[in-house]
Amino acid sequence: MSSNDTDINNKKQPPVPEPTLYRLPIYLTYLKLAKKAGLQYVSSTLIAKEMGIDSTQVTKDLSHTAIVGKTRVGYQVDQLISVLETFLRFNSVDYGYLFGAGSLGTALLLDHGLAQFGFAIRAAFDVNPDKVGLNMGGVKIYHLDDFARLKEPEVNIGILTVPVDEAQRVTDIMVSGGIKAIWNFTSVRIKTPEDVVVQNTSLYAHLAVIFNRLHRES
Amino acid sequence: MSSNDTDINNKKQPPVPEPTLYRLPIYLTYLKLAKKAGLQYVSSTLIAKEMGIDSTQVTKDLSHTAIVGKTRVGYQVDQLISVLETFLRFNSVDYGYLFGAGSLGTALLLDHGLAQFGFAIRAAFDVNPDKVGLNMGGVKIYHLDDFARLKEPEVNIGILTVPVDEAQRVTDIMVSGGIKAIWNFTSVRIKTPEDVVVQNTSLYAHLAVIFNRLHRES
Repeated sequence: MSSNDTDINNKKQPPVPEPTLYRLPIYLTYLKLAKKAGLQYVSSTLIAKEMGIDSTQVTKDLSHTAIVGKTRVGYQVDQLISVLETFLRFNSVDYGYLFGAGSLGTALLLDHGLAQFGFAIRAAFDVNPDKVGLNMGGVKIYHLDDFARLKEPEVNIGILTVPVDEAQRVTDIMVSGGIKAIWNFTSVRIKTPEDVVVQNTSLYAHLAVIFNRLHRES
Repeated sequence: MSSNDTDINNKKQPPVPEPTLYRLPIYLTYLKLAKKAGLQYVSSTLIAKEMGIDSTQVTKDLSHTAIVGKTRVGYQVDQLISVLETFLRFNSVDYGYLFGAGSLGTALLLDHGLAQFGFAIRAAFDVNPDKVGLNMGGVKIYHLDDFARLKEPEVNIGILTVPVDEAQRVTDIMVSGGIKAIWNFTSVRIKTPEDVVVQNTSLYAHLAVIFNRLHRES
């Protein structure tokens, strides 16, 4: 979404623009469908047409991945799929913890889609005694107080799905425990040190857009 | 998210900008927390500080709701909460159907948060015989073939959580059945008539941003 706090320091190469990072997975999905339909090559013009955007945008987006299209035939579908999967890190695995095993949190534990895109939830943390000790979708729920002790070095992403009045407190616990990126599903703007990556995904803000547009139309 | 296809025809008053619609629910959450903490008035400067944005942006965003702040004291918290809830239609109810009761779809059926923001899922549709007839979170799952027959006039929103290779086909079924707004959770860019509202929410595209930013930092 547009209201995004993702930290983009210019440490190395210039950062890939956020709109590009949002579009690339959409291209990838289209390419997989095209492959299934038997296509071997696709042009940026064809991708653009399918996405409803301009073909120079597609070329520009794909230029970040360093793939080169052939004149007249375009990109080889297989190769472009593989390049995109690697570029987006969908074919390696990043690990995360879930903070807040309420209805949305539990929902994410049960969603197999995340695993398909290279994300594995290793454990969940909550404060509700009725939840601590349970196993949801193969993920064990621990008490939040045990997080600092249980934190594994390879787990850098934290999903935040706690109630809004706990959001900042749990954020502080995540950060002091060594979490480097927070996927914030709450509708609170959390405060973090500059080097922590924050991605805001507020489903209810998207709902606000739908309601507004729908009732303008009708 | 930025890659958004929401249709904004200029039929009536100029449309509220999408970034504003994303921010207003975040303000609302903050105001509810402020109220809980005992605040009676908030200034746009205070809201801005909490959100990490400019105060002129806050004033501009709130101007769409026609609320008026008092000089020196700012906005009355109770009143602003009520104005925002009405403006965002979070205190009335809109109805929707879910299309695709897979892991993400089921997750949404079980998330109580949607109801709190004025959205009620009336029924779900799927083609999997193991799912048809089940009841998930109080919502019955019907066969997709029964949608046209069961469509109720007051249900205008469809949530799309089907597999990617079914996304366009199911979109066409939704549209011809009278769905006016599609909340698209798939990573496919669906094609719809111009008067259908489409809101894209691709969780996996957000994951791509997190992976990219995290591995740039480390």
